[in-house]
Amino acid sequence: MTMTAAPASPAEQTKEYVELLGLLREAATLNSVGALLSWDQETLMPPRAAAFRAQQLSTMSKLAHERRTDPRIGELLAACENNSDIQEDALAHANIREARRDYDRAVKLPSELIVQMAETNSMGMEAWKEARAKSDYALFKPWLEKQVDLNRRKAECYGVPAGGELYDALMEDFEPGMLSAEVDRLFVPFRAALTPLIAAIADAPKRPSDAVQRIQTDIEKQKELNRFVAGAVGFDYQGGILAVSTHPFSESVAPGDTRMTTRYSTTNFPEAISTTLHESGHSIYEQNQPKAERFGQPLAEAISLGIHESQSRMLENQMGRSRAFWEWALPHAKRILGSGASAATVDDVFGAINIVRPHFIRVESDEVTYNLHIMLRFDLERAMIRGDLSPADLPGAWNERMKNDLGLSVTDDAQGCLQDVHWSMGAIGYFATYSLGNLYAGQFWDKINQDIPDLEAQFSRGEFSGLIGWLSENIHQHGRRYSAPELCRRITGKELSHESLMSYLKAKLHPLYGL
Amino acid sequence: MTMTAAPASPAEQTKEYVELLGLLREAATLNSVGALLSWDQETLMPPRAAAFRAQQLSTMSKLAHERRTDPRIGELLAACENNSDIQEDALAHANIREARRDYDRAVKLPSELIVQMAETNSMGMEAWKEARAKSDYALFKPWLEKQVDLNRRKAECYGVPAGGELYDALMEDFEPGMLSAEVDRLFVPFRAALTPLIAAIADAPKRPSDAVQRIQTDIEKQKELNRFVAGAVGFDYQGGILAVSTHPFSESVAPGDTRMTTRYSTTNFPEAISTTLHESGHSIYEQNQPKAERFGQPLAEAISLGIHESQSRMLENQMGRSRAFWEWALPHAKRILGSGASAATVDDVFGAINIVRPHFIRVESDEVTYNLHIMLRFDLERAMIRGDLSPADLPGAWNERMKNDLGLSVTDDAQGCLQDVHWSMGAIGYFATYSLGNLYAGQFWDKINQDIPDLEAQFSRGEFSGLIGWLSENIHQHGRRYSAPELCRRITGKELSHESLMSYLKAKLHPLYGL
Repeated sequence: MTMTAAPASPAEQTKEYVELLGLLREAATLNSVGALLSWDQETLMPPRAAAFRAQQLSTMSKLAHERRTDPRIGELLAACENNSDIQEDALAHANIREARRDYDRAVKLPSELIVQMAETNSMGMEAWKEARAKSDYALFKPWLEKQVDLNRRKAECYGVPAGGELYDALMEDFEPGMLSAEVDRLFVPFRAALTPLIAAIADAPKRPSDAVQRIQTDIEKQKELNRFVAGAVGFDYQGGILAVSTHPFSESVAPGDTRMTTRYSTTNFPEAISTTLHESGHSIYEQNQPKAERFGQPLAEAISLGIHESQSRMLENQMGRSRAFWEWALPHAKRILGSGASAATVDDVFGAINIVRPHFIRVESDEVTYNLHIMLRFDLERAMIRGDLSPADLPGAWNERMKNDLGLSVTDDAQGCLQDVHWSMGAIGYFATYSLGNLYAGQFWDKINQDIPDLEAQFSRGEFSGLIGWLSENIHQHGRRYSAPELCRRITGKELSHESLMSYLKAKLHPLYGL
Repeated sequence: MTMTAAPASPAEQTKEYVELLGLLREAATLNSVGALLSWDQETLMPPRAAAFRAQQLSTMSKLAHERRTDPRIGELLAACENNSDIQEDALAHANIREARRDYDRAVKLPSELIVQMAETNSMGMEAWKEARAKSDYALFKPWLEKQVDLNRRKAECYGVPAGGELYDALMEDFEPGMLSAEVDRLFVPFRAALTPLIAAIADAPKRPSDAVQRIQTDIEKQKELNRFVAGAVGFDYQGGILAVSTHPFSESVAPGDTRMTTRYSTTNFPEAISTTLHESGHSIYEQNQPKAERFGQPLAEAISLGIHESQSRMLENQMGRSRAFWEWALPHAKRILGSGASAATVDDVFGAINIVRPHFIRVESDEVTYNLHIMLRFDLERAMIRGDLSPADLPGAWNERMKNDLGLSVTDDAQGCLQDVHWSMGAIGYFATYSLGNLYAGQFWDKINQDIPDLEAQFSRGEFSGLIGWLSENIHQHGRRYSAPELCRRITGKELSHESLMSYLKAKLHPLYGL
């Protein structure tokens, strides 16, 4: 394999910098193997392999952690921080700044904790699957207790960030630099804006029909359609796979290897398209980072889960729930799916996929009420880490909030606090990033439409390179060069807020509901 | 995970033995991750991931090699060899004997060579794919030269086995204890018996029709049929996967995780069944070893590739090309495949799948001429390691042998010396095991039919547990407890020879060809 690249800058010729990048690449190689193990666990692995898979994953986590915390990395970082060539080179400087952050965090975690977390994550997920299938919270409770304990230990190892609380040390893994007080500052007015919109829609004079979501279509044909749509939008099959799993996800395995899944039911073909577009957003972000040249470097990694989610939600929602998108997509759906879909109109699909209606399940929720699900989870997991909520009391607290926030009475934990995989795999501090992603997507969307005034017309012609090119140039190619708030300011000239997203939601939903 | 197991014997309570098994398990865990990487490379990996996959594999090989050659293993082996509890325990003794063999071989290979081989194997395979697709030997030649050099180096590290030659050091990786002089001793009379049979068939008064191999059937339906057949025979889907790949293979990834592939064409549904049965034979052998309890121990590993191949060839040929098997299978094929197959009779299928006709391609060859392919490869690769044949001269030598041995004029290297993947991935010393497998299968088959006189009647009723139970009890469960020749003597009371196989072939083929 030879790569063509720009001639090396003075920074890139620095001996310590070159050695450091080599070590980062080695650690990332071990991580990439772990990523394949995880992907396989969710897509293909036979049931009896589950127990041993936990050992494979913990072995790889331990080895990767050993590499990431190699004292030689510390020495090389110090040398690079004192080297003026590197400090004056914007890209190298960003690489060193972020590698320093990663190293300082990694060395705080003992290897024994890494192994315990990896095993607990893999086995906790299997326990959760069983608990959810049986709707039996008692099966999951001991694992959640263990995860809360392990996460508190992890947070204590990291230490409380300046101006923050223990929970914020966990959130830092997913949304660097974000504090929960700042999330509150964003979520409180966001909730205040969402609530009246939801109430108005509930009492609206007209409602779209969901008939199109009950059309029966063949799953093999849906696979062909989704494969076609993802490819048209920009997912590169030479460097990626689209597969099927119960819980759709994307996994950036390695350079040239970005994998995503979707799911199908014989009814509701637009839902599968939404899911595929969501995962395409994640995967295209990964595919457009300079991984071939910079694998293992912060400059070839995603900034934060909030920014990641902004990419997936934008393709799913701002683009994929637009009338213009379906003007292009529906004729293809009819061509591929055949008879069942042939009577549907663009307005039928547009109406159905924009129905706003509180739902028990987060991932089946609309663009509006979805955010109330996130706020609920954010508050409850924060309370568990604070020690204000015991895992034993989770179902009660969950159900109370569902009643208050969404007006729904949970009678079944599978439809309640057992619905999401995250806590089972130790991902506490993660949930807020979903709504942060919605807010980022809303704010970026405003700017994209200013920069590309005929964006919707492009969609209706099946042209997506304008949008993807903009995202690649402004976001994807930078990797972790800029922090999420910095990127937001660079692109939009403003701090993050709910205003753009709310304007977009009202502009779409008011006409649809006759408001 | 809890396991129920027999109470620990004195040997199993020996501290050094327990520690040793732990280290072997760790090394095997790293190997298991490598196995998943290989499986994925052949089944799913997107094209652009190939270059980096070589790095992932070489990283895992290096790590596994480091574990396997940990000096602590040497210390523990010495302690166990001097412990009378272990030496008096037949199972523990076998584990130590085989672990000693593995350790003594592994420490002879420098880590640098391991890395170079892993990278060359992965990249060589990609080069071979391209060379074969373009039928351009020049693209493959430098890689074969590199593989011959690396294999000579490896063999020199191992050292020439007593009574053998350099090539035998390589064969030892695949067929422990086998020398090429012993292969000659088996192959010379085997060839002398095959040649007149092939000549007689070529001039035979009658020939079966191959019409049934041209019936068009749907590939999705074939998948269902093959899935059903493999399950009925004994492949366990709770601990395994049946997938699709261009070159079918089996991979024992981990405890509870045995994977195999097959391939389909819209014509020739019996061929897909043959392939699936072949891989089922390999996979059931792996699934029936005590891997859950003994992962990483020689007692939970296959003896040799020859014994492995005896299991696959027996299900493919002795069972799967029998009239009795198709008395059961054909009605299921008709039920699942529908109209295309409905007119076929058991005699049609039985005749077609037993046609003997020299073919350019080894894997498309019949039970008889297949062995001439193996002898050709065995002789040529041995000559390359001896230095008597240069990789530059391979196509000429190949084509000359094909003309002499099989009467076929190769005009295209893709149909000639580029057809097999083995040399591209560094597997030199491997080919003889295919025909050794045929010989073992023939000899075991005699004994099975003595022990289970109504075996064919069982097949015709779809009962395979008699056969699989016999194989499990006599072969699978033992892992590496007995060497291949020892196992053969224990089961059949005789040394390996071609006699049983030839009797079986004549008994089946003479009536079919009116001889």
